[in-house]
Amino acid sequence: MTQRTDVTRTLAEWIVGCRSDAIPEEIRTEGLRTFVNWLGCAIGGATHKTVDRALAAVAPFSGAPEASVLGRSERLDPLHAALINGISSHVLDYDDTHLKTIIHPAGPVASALLAIAETRPVSGTAFLDALIIGVEAECRIGNSVYPEHYDRGWHITGTAGVFGAAAAVGRLLGLDVQKMTWALGIAATQSSGFREMFGTMCKSFHPGRAAQNGAFAAFLAQAGFDSSERAIEAPRGFANVMSDKQDYGEILGGLGTHWETALNSYKPFACGIVIHPAIDGCIQLRNELGDVNRIVKVELLTHPLVLELTGKTEPRTGLEGKFSVFHAAASALLRGDGSPTAFTDEAVNDPALVELRRNVHVTTDPGCYEASVTIIVTLDDGQRLEKHVERAIGSRERPLSDDQIEAKFRGQAAMVIGEQACDSLIEAAWQIGAMDDVGALARACVPSATR
Amino acid sequence: MTQRTDVTRTLAEWIVGCRSDAIPEEIRTEGLRTFVNWLGCAIGGATHKTVDRALAAVAPFSGAPEASVLGRSERLDPLHAALINGISSHVLDYDDTHLKTIIHPAGPVASALLAIAETRPVSGTAFLDALIIGVEAECRIGNSVYPEHYDRGWHITGTAGVFGAAAAVGRLLGLDVQKMTWALGIAATQSSGFREMFGTMCKSFHPGRAAQNGAFAAFLAQAGFDSSERAIEAPRGFANVMSDKQDYGEILGGLGTHWETALNSYKPFACGIVIHPAIDGCIQLRNELGDVNRIVKVELLTHPLVLELTGKTEPRTGLEGKFSVFHAAASALLRGDGSPTAFTDEAVNDPALVELRRNVHVTTDPGCYEASVTIIVTLDDGQRLEKHVERAIGSRERPLSDDQIEAKFRGQAAMVIGEQACDSLIEAAWQIGAMDDVGALARACVPSATR
Repeated sequence: MTQRTDVTRTLAEWIVGCRSDAIPEEIRTEGLRTFVNWLGCAIGGATHKTVDRALAAVAPFSGAPEASVLGRSERLDPLHAALINGISSHVLDYDDTHLKTIIHPAGPVASALLAIAETRPVSGTAFLDALIIGVEAECRIGNSVYPEHYDRGWHITGTAGVFGAAAAVGRLLGLDVQKMTWALGIAATQSSGFREMFGTMCKSFHPGRAAQNGAFAAFLAQAGFDSSERAIEAPRGFANVMSDKQDYGEILGGLGTHWETALNSYKPFACGIVIHPAIDGCIQLRNELGDVNRIVKVELLTHPLVLELTGKTEPRTGLEGKFSVFHAAASALLRGDGSPTAFTDEAVNDPALVELRRNVHVTTDPGCYEASVTIIVTLDDGQRLEKHVERAIGSRERPLSDDQIEAKFRGQAAMVIGEQACDSLIEAAWQIGAMDDVGALARACVPSATR
Repeated sequence: MTQRTDVTRTLAEWIVGCRSDAIPEEIRTEGLRTFVNWLGCAIGGATHKTVDRALAAVAPFSGAPEASVLGRSERLDPLHAALINGISSHVLDYDDTHLKTIIHPAGPVASALLAIAETRPVSGTAFLDALIIGVEAECRIGNSVYPEHYDRGWHITGTAGVFGAAAAVGRLLGLDVQKMTWALGIAATQSSGFREMFGTMCKSFHPGRAAQNGAFAAFLAQAGFDSSERAIEAPRGFANVMSDKQDYGEILGGLGTHWETALNSYKPFACGIVIHPAIDGCIQLRNELGDVNRIVKVELLTHPLVLELTGKTEPRTGLEGKFSVFHAAASALLRGDGSPTAFTDEAVNDPALVELRRNVHVTTDPGCYEASVTIIVTLDDGQRLEKHVERAIGSRERPLSDDQIEAKFRGQAAMVIGEQACDSLIEAAWQIGAMDDVGALARACVPSATR
């Protein structure tokens, strides 16, 4: 497979040529759920200090303020808006997940698309087409190199996301196959972002930068800026340089008949997805227990990825707390909370939570399914309670309903833009497919006082 | 060595703490030669269509036009100016080379610095300090992973250059050690660019983007945007993810006593440096031969890197011609030309050059020194002439003199900004160390009619 010479171009042909009416209704519905979930997260994360600081750095360099910063009063040029909205949509680690690759698909793609859609009329149909096609490109490229690429240390949401943003924006711009091929190449050669950054502000910088860089790749290609036409499959291209696995069948197989978009899932908790089973089970135990102050010891039996990804024993900040199964379990047991408020600087430094998290012990078992966990809680009288979660809430087998996505949206966005504005926005977001110009929706995503 | 935990911070401490008067005079002189050579290249490349197209894509998104696009009338915000100036300084493949790593050091560092220096008063001393310190950071980080990193397929001018730009701009901004550590981290997680892009517009995009991204990293860090504090040495950081070699002694050993800046060299020919010996020898043969039309066959005995890097047998564009030893040898023999005019779209499609390049044969020998070549030319009467080049012009053993750097500057920049303006600029550039505000120099780098 490594000798193929037409992977990038064949993918570009599909991105350019895929007809709107060839996207099945259930895929369009999942694309819509992806969008609504992302929009709530982008508004919900907008007041995080990560966003404050990024905006402070960006503001002096912004071009014409044509695009909205979701959840805030500032306006920026569309590329910088894509960056900031990509950061805010991911900063709470509360967005969406393509479970096969742990890509968070919407951040890079939707952040780029909505910002560009404020600069030209884009119908809801064209917008959702581009969103779905961008997510397909992103997740398929991710599949082609996962897990070796991720294991090497790449934050795949950034490294694959830049392709999704380029594909989606290139589609909006109406690039031809030649220019779409270049756009994918210009995206490829910007692919970047280390897992080392988890727990720091740079984690959410990755999808933001992927959105901005992918969109810019599309604009460069539109201007005739060329690149290699085999950027994905060349011996010194993306797949070979950044991964020890290259399976191009994952990119080209079943294009237009099999949809990765169908596999997107939406996080019920605001942290690394591998600890969702533990939070789910701990909240259940808390509800059954009554007096959680009697807990003296917590034992978790999990998949090994849980410790590999979220093994921080002494998180110092809220962002680090998102990568501590110890903190997450303590918060779920003591507060019943897995939402953004469970992962603030205050929460991770709460003495009661700190005390309990130090009594959380994790044993891993490769035979344990990733969406499962077994929890044993020991009380002060020596009594032991066990809880097994077979499939965590938010997994493919227990997906969030539309109502749950809406409640999640309201829970994080109402305080940012006002309850009434939030309710109107939720209603409008579900109807985006029928809009003539989706830019209006972006402009409704700002605090009430701003409008 | 892979277990070190203080590489990034120790480097940041040196970048912040290095005293101006601790930089030896001969290093300052080499930094000045690096700057003057870079400036001529940035102006000389400014009219290339690569720059036209990048500018067309960038213009709609630019912020306040505070910085000059060297060699052109447009003005951009300083981050976009850093991008464009980085592209134009490298697009002719005529800039500078740190031979140990094949990094082209000035593009990422100087392009970022000069653009930022237009937005605030920066003395010539502070400017050269930052340039030299940025080049040190860039080349030392390159040394730590070369050649495995390069062999994997990374274009090291982009991947290491982003650190140099962050270090240099961070120094200008007066970042403290904490923030400089973050700046290096934010730079690291943007490190990108594939060798697959050689021969396309994306090759020069790499130093441009490195300049822009590195500068942005410094501004983000200034605003308190954090990152991993071990971005270079962490198990999932730069060196481990992007290379199979990690030698941190190359980064930290002899800081302040040994200077990589001293090893910079300046290209006499506008193409991949590994074919400079062949061009040098072919021009000598041409001068000795008289009637070059009698040549029927050309044989080259070279280092293996020559074919690996510049083995394009049928280049279609000027940019591809820069990676064709066959074209370069033909041009040097038939036209005596290794300057930018030898690598235009017209030149690579000249029938006479095409015919001769098809009669160029390359044999490689790992025992052949990289700066050497043996050339055998066969004439139409069967006569064979041999030329051995032991060390090519432009190599460390035969460096360009100040006069040659000046002639190179004039040769490419006079047509762009006018002869008189060019002469004044060259004089001013050599004196940059004495300036109170180097921004004035940038503003003198535009076409006469513009000012």
